[in-house]
Amino acid sequence: MPDTAGMKDHVYKILDLVGSSEKSIEDAIQNAVTRASKTIREMKWFEVVQTRGHIENGSVRHYQVTLRVGFTLEE
Amino acid sequence: MPDTAGMKDHVYKILDLVGSSEKSIEDAIQNAVTRASKTIREMKWFEVVQTRGHIENGSVRHYQVTLRVGFTLEE
Amino acid sequence: MPDTAGMKDHVYKILDLVGSSEKSIEDAIQNAVTRASKTIREMKWFEVVQTRGHIENGSVRHYQVTLRVGFTLEE
Amino acid sequence: MPDTAGMKDHVYKILDLVGSSEKSIEDAIQNAVTRASKTIREMKWFEVVQTRGHIENGSVRHYQVTLRVGFTLEE
Amino acid sequence: MPDTAGMKDHVYKILDLVGSSEKSIEDAIQNAVTRASKTIREMKWFEVVQTRGHIENGSVRHYQVTLRVGFTLEE
Amino acid sequence: MPDTAGMKDHVYKILDLVGSSEKSIEDAIQNAVTRASKTIREMKWFEVVQTRGHIENGSVRHYQVTLRVGFTLEE
Amino acid sequence: MPDTAGMKDHVYKILDLVGSSEKSIEDAIQNAVTRASKTIREMKWFEVVQTRGHIENGSVRHYQVTLRVGFTLEE
Amino acid sequence: MPDTAGMKDHVYKILDLVGSSEKSIEDAIQNAVTRASKTIREMKWFEVVQTRGHIENGSVRHYQVTLRVGFTLEE
Amino acid sequence: MPDTAGMKDHVYKILDLVGSSEKSIEDAIQNAVTRASKTIREMKWFEVVQTRGHIENGSVRHYQVTLRVGFTLEE
Amino acid sequence: MPDTAGMKDHVYKILDLVGSSEKSIEDAIQNAVTRASKTIREMKWFEVVQTRGHIENGSVRHYQVTLRVGFTLEE
Amino acid sequence: MPDTAGMKDHVYKILDLVGSSEKSIEDAIQNAVTRASKTIREMKWFEVVQTRGHIENGSVRHYQVTLRVGFTLEE
Amino acid sequence: MPDTAGMKDHVYKILDLVGSSEKSIEDAIQNAVTRASKTIREMKWFEVVQTRGHIENGSVRHYQVTLRVGFTLEE
Repeated sequence: MPDTAGMKDHVYKILDLVGSSEKSIEDAIQNAVTRASKTIREMKWFEVVQTRGHIENGSVRHYQVTLRVGFTLEE
Repeated sequence: MPDTAGMKDHVYKILDLVGSSEKSIEDAIQNAVTRASKTIREMKWFEVVQTRGHIENGSVRHYQVTLRVGFTLEE
Repeated sequence: MPDTAGMKDHVYKILDLVGSSEKSIEDAIQNAVTRASKTIREMKWFEVVQTRGHIENGSVRHYQVTLRVGFTLEE
Repeated sequence: MPDTAGMKDHVYKILDLVGSSEKSIEDAIQNAVTRASKTIREMKWFEVVQTRGHIENGSVRHYQVTLRVGFTLEE
Repeated sequence: MPDTAGMKDHVYKILDLVGSSEKSIEDAIQNAVTRASKTIREMKWFEVVQTRGHIENGSVRHYQVTLRVGFTLEE
Repeated sequence: MPDTAGMKDHVYKILDLVGSSEKSIEDAIQNAVTRASKTIREMKWFEVVQTRGHIENGSVRHYQVTLRVGFTLEE
Repeated sequence: MPDTAGMKDHVYKILDLVGSSEKSIEDAIQNAVTRASKTIREMKWFEVVQTRGHIENGSVRHYQVTLRVGFTLEE
Repeated sequence: MPDTAGMKDHVYKILDLVGSSEKSIEDAIQNAVTRASKTIREMKWFEVVQTRGHIENGSVRHYQVTLRVGFTLEE
Repeated sequence: MPDTAGMKDHVYKILDLVGSSEKSIEDAIQNAVTRASKTIREMKWFEVVQTRGHIENGSVRHYQVTLRVGFTLEE
Repeated sequence: MPDTAGMKDHVYKILDLVGSSEKSIEDAIQNAVTRASKTIREMKWFEVVQTRGHIENGSVRHYQVTLRVGFTLEE
Repeated sequence: MPDTAGMKDHVYKILDLVGSSEKSIEDAIQNAVTRASKTIREMKWFEVVQTRGHIENGSVRHYQVTLRVGFTLEE
Repeated sequence: MPDTAGMKDHVYKILDLVGSSEKSIEDAIQNAVTRASKTIREMKWFEVVQTRGHIENGSVRHYQVTLRVGFTLEE
């Protein structure tokens, strides 16, 4: 929730993404951010909205994390 | 909520839409999806966020359904 | 959620209702609106708050939909 | 939400189910109830928790409804 | 949440009330229902929305319970 | 949230209203309260449930605030 | 919410129940637990999800409490 | 939710507490307030956030209630 | 929440934005709308999702308001 | 929601406050922050949790805003 | 949230579990799934409902994750 | 959510904290707990309220986790 004063004049747009990974929740977050960064450059922060995943034969097969990502419109 | 393993490597982007119909809730959902499919091809799933509508002279005039729609970024 | 500018000066009162129907969710909504229209004339919009129902012998017997209904106080 | 007095001494167990249908939200609810009724006889009521669905080629392919179903433990 | 089949054709109106009591949460609920029954006869069910209270000199002075109360419009 | 002891024996009824204003959120609240005070005298408190508004030509045209208003039944 | 370290290696299963009582909210909780204990032995904790009830002739006839109950799978 | 005018100029600080009791929900609330009153004098109101408890041998052993407590900073 | 009948055939897309202002909550809303209107013409309504802000030396330095903005896809 | 990188190593403590004002929502926020700044120096951000108020004789008498305020523990 | 078309005819049952681990959130999820797989074979997906844990001497001692797990009734 | 009987007579105070880490969500939790343990000794449990983070140049720069932490007042 914390903000800093240096960023206070920006208008942010928020994008909702779902990333996935077989390794970890953190890796699923990074995969979503990496993919989105191909078209959106000024992403600044994210918030985890939901954490889910698939199970195969009694093992977690991969994680799926829904993110809200904020990026500045000035860029 | 269920997912299948075959789709696990995708990154999804989520789009929020409001569709409407005079006939039914299902038709309002389809109208939103039809309209969005003109510019977004790889829509895969939706989730109903809110169901509302208008009333005229004591009758439901039409339904308005807010959807979250997921589509793959790979396309 | 959408509003139009033409209605912007009204004050609305909100009424919570539960309607039911053996046929469909849409019909339960209409039944609640029809019944309320006997005493309230200027109902303008509704929002579905909850969808429930009864089961008898393994079949859905009827639907029960809780609505918030807005009507203008000017009437 | 309404209850009646005649059922007041029961203890209910709640079961969460996901049903699906290509036709309608109501049909997805009934499909979940039908399938569950093979092993649970005294289902009494349900509540819709979430409505979702799949999209193929710009059309809603089927609906997926998550239900909470209450049944009496006395049976 | 449970409903019974015998009441399925009613339309309910929902009223929000706040009752209070120095004795207990149950007594605050009853006080709100008693007061409302002076003008509304066919109240059928209630749901507790919030439980609050006042403190004086380190003791709970009384409880304040917000209820949603459903009553039939047929009466 | 704070309450005071002096009001502890009242039963409150809660009314949901939507007010609007071209000026400010505060003015939209006051407009709803002013309109409701024509028929309800003993309104005591309000709670903001939702803040919305209309946009015309890239400018906020007016604010729409949904309130819960509590008033004593003793009057 | 508090947990203690001694129970940290367990896997819990959660069961949702609705209990009722004419006496009090606490008694409705106990009735649900008593009934469930006939088939589930290692119940450890509960959480109240919803408190509701029936009204007859302007009096609370009984309370209905929805619980989440956790029990260990090791037993 | 109700407030009174006499307290309107205060700034409140809110403290979250968990109290417990073997007797009742009300007693768990009082126990939390009693304990907190050793260091905080001007507690004015509380709100119940969560009601939980422990089960031993199929009986509710005690209740655990999470409270938000407001007190004035002027003292 | 209110809608009017004249807008019932539109499909809306919803965009999430964060605007900020040193002056007021209303000004932060307008700043977000103004910035978004550079690329989106047919914005019709907004809903406030969250109100936050920065503090410097014990004073509110500016407000940050997260909005959901609806615009018609027909344009 | 936005954060900046420059503040990323801090641990924040969050404090919940209620401020009030006869003038505006913004003024109620500032009053809470001003009062808290007497004992807490490094407050950095706030989030509005609830907006309420009192009504007297059909007019809003003052606003009451519940805030979550974050401050750094390093100071 | 994403689903795939291949699984569309199933009815799922949802089970709520709490798993724990001294290592990580992901390990707590896997432990719950491993334990449940002893009696339930066709688990397909999970959703994280709550993440909690114990603290001993100022260190996180272990994580406790509450999951909703979906499995097909066809098996 | 699980509790054990041995801790049932305590009153807990709840503290909200935000911790951060460049490594993982678990490390951000531990950093908040470590920092708080300098002044609070008897922390017993935590609950994750929100998971957020910063992005720089298309990579997650660090995680920010908001916790509720319970500690006994007896110490």
